[in-house]
Amino acid sequence: MRTLIVGLGERTYPIHIGNDLLERADLFLEHLPQRRVSIVTNTTVAALYLERLCIALRGAGVEVVPVVVPDGEQHKTWGTLNIIFDALLSNRCERKSTIIALGGGVVGDLAGFAAASYQRGVPLIQVPTTLLSQVDSSVGGKTAINHPLGKNMIGAFYQPGMVMADTGLLDTLPVRELSAGLAEVIKYGLIMDLPFLEWLEANMDLLIARDATALAYAVTRSCENKAMVVSADERESGERALLNLGHTFGHAIESGLGFGTWLHGEAVAAGSILAARLSERMGLLTADDVQRISRLFRRAGLPVEAPSLGPDRYLELMAHDKKVENGRLRLVLLQSLGKAFVTADFDLRDLREIVGGATANV
Amino acid sequence: MRTLIVGLGERTYPIHIGNDLLERADLFLEHLPQRRVSIVTNTTVAALYLERLCIALRGAGVEVVPVVVPDGEQHKTWGTLNIIFDALLSNRCERKSTIIALGGGVVGDLAGFAAASYQRGVPLIQVPTTLLSQVDSSVGGKTAINHPLGKNMIGAFYQPGMVMADTGLLDTLPVRELSAGLAEVIKYGLIMDLPFLEWLEANMDLLIARDATALAYAVTRSCENKAMVVSADERESGERALLNLGHTFGHAIESGLGFGTWLHGEAVAAGSILAARLSERMGLLTADDVQRISRLFRRAGLPVEAPSLGPDRYLELMAHDKKVENGRLRLVLLQSLGKAFVTADFDLRDLREIVGGATANV
Repeated sequence: MRTLIVGLGERTYPIHIGNDLLERADLFLEHLPQRRVSIVTNTTVAALYLERLCIALRGAGVEVVPVVVPDGEQHKTWGTLNIIFDALLSNRCERKSTIIALGGGVVGDLAGFAAASYQRGVPLIQVPTTLLSQVDSSVGGKTAINHPLGKNMIGAFYQPGMVMADTGLLDTLPVRELSAGLAEVIKYGLIMDLPFLEWLEANMDLLIARDATALAYAVTRSCENKAMVVSADERESGERALLNLGHTFGHAIESGLGFGTWLHGEAVAAGSILAARLSERMGLLTADDVQRISRLFRRAGLPVEAPSLGPDRYLELMAHDKKVENGRLRLVLLQSLGKAFVTADFDLRDLREIVGGATANV
Repeated sequence: MRTLIVGLGERTYPIHIGNDLLERADLFLEHLPQRRVSIVTNTTVAALYLERLCIALRGAGVEVVPVVVPDGEQHKTWGTLNIIFDALLSNRCERKSTIIALGGGVVGDLAGFAAASYQRGVPLIQVPTTLLSQVDSSVGGKTAINHPLGKNMIGAFYQPGMVMADTGLLDTLPVRELSAGLAEVIKYGLIMDLPFLEWLEANMDLLIARDATALAYAVTRSCENKAMVVSADERESGERALLNLGHTFGHAIESGLGFGTWLHGEAVAAGSILAARLSERMGLLTADDVQRISRLFRRAGLPVEAPSLGPDRYLELMAHDKKVENGRLRLVLLQSLGKAFVTADFDLRDLREIVGGATANV
């Protein structure tokens, strides 16, 4: 087991990474102010891991209230959040009862926002069960639900007390979800870690084959990168926005196709290629660089052509992005491989052409 | 104008108290990161003050998006919150656009929680228009909506950048609401400020007659008390709970009668008497003390007999309180006049008898 620390003053917390951690009740116990937890999970994950976690915790004398919600991004709504609140209230969960999020990014976002707002905030532990949530969404305290007019529009910055990334749980992950997680892993290489990007190029086949050592390394290195950024800029006033490479395009794709049609990681992959093409148009990347990025995403099993929504629809959807400032869209682009920056200083006609060139059938 | 400071480290903010502040655009401008605001208010307050504030801000070059919601505690729900989110999103309000809450406690709680969760947090300014919100709810960062199973169950601690308490706005306040605000004013005297309690006994007739000097003093002294408590305990891990004298009983009354039947301040007044009676039963207060408290609330135009809900229903409703810990109800009681404490150490039979003795017709 490796333990990273996300340094955030009084909100500092550990990320434990390793195999077979799920039943380590001792790792949970030291973070429970009260021996009473609610485990929020979805139908898919519940069938695989809920009982194991319940038995481990109950064996350690912890009272457990399981809350099972439907699976899928389309359920990241107020309605599902309310299922959680109803369960917490009718089971008399208190201010010191801990919420454990057992699942992928959607469960983490829902349970995290529930923890942030139930009784104005109760303790939270993240147990991410997908590669995407292990390397990205469970770390850094972003929680949210979607609104019909935009993804992640309602939420909170709310830090967990602990994150447990059990890489053994990835064995049961569908291949499409493994790929979606690799999109965020590749992202860290692109925005801030060229040596890691090169490592990924050398080891992509091992990752796809779920080699345990390679996966553990990729999760650790990704979390190290994310922890560094989040420690420096918890509430995304600056540098943290770099983590959103491909996300403004990606959110438009997800929202334009209807949440849940493409996985978040798939949209981020195709969105990152659009960002790379715009960077190329501005003379920052070479055509070879873009090819190289595209090849890596493709080897990870990800789409590299964005769906054809029409340029007007893309721009309309992108205008709802949280990075818009004074009505001006800001994008994360690449200065070079391994170095990203945020800018509002691009040619809108270039942007139109690039999203207009998105051709994948939808 | 007097300015108090609520000291909360990087979240420190000023409370401006005085007459005719509403049109002082300069006081707003220094807290706007962007010249773009959304004013959240209700139908009643909009008719009285919205235009004045809009004209003042627009005159200073600020773009204003007004959002008018229905009036009343029964609208402090997710549905109303969503009206606000819809307006913010369809008007493209951004992360640096400020939300101004113009109204009483319900508007402040709704707009405050909207500011806490829209795009994971945008700047907030509170302009309380009722006595209750000027002396209590606009200060200290508590925001929330109600859930059918409990009041203020979903919310956030979220500090405003500035509070403007314009005592001139109280001229239009209905007499019943003035009284409801006085309940929280009296509370500060009871829990922590015996000299203020004595001042209130001497000046209650002036307050009821809306004497400007007396009102300004009462607002300032109340805010000073609240600021002191909040600075010491922002997230209610200890001392801050003392501010909830009468509130556990009061929430049960509000919830038991249906939100909006009794005003919050009315429920707090009757609830404080119940807390005082339990304190008397425990030998902490004398019968004379309880009489004295009761007389002061009555002179403020407040109910001093709680409604008859039956003891079982009271205990059932009180069990949902946020101060419940390990299944054990904790109450704010009085050690003496001017000194409150939190305890779980009371006789449940005494409590049953006292709520069972509540006799007011409902």
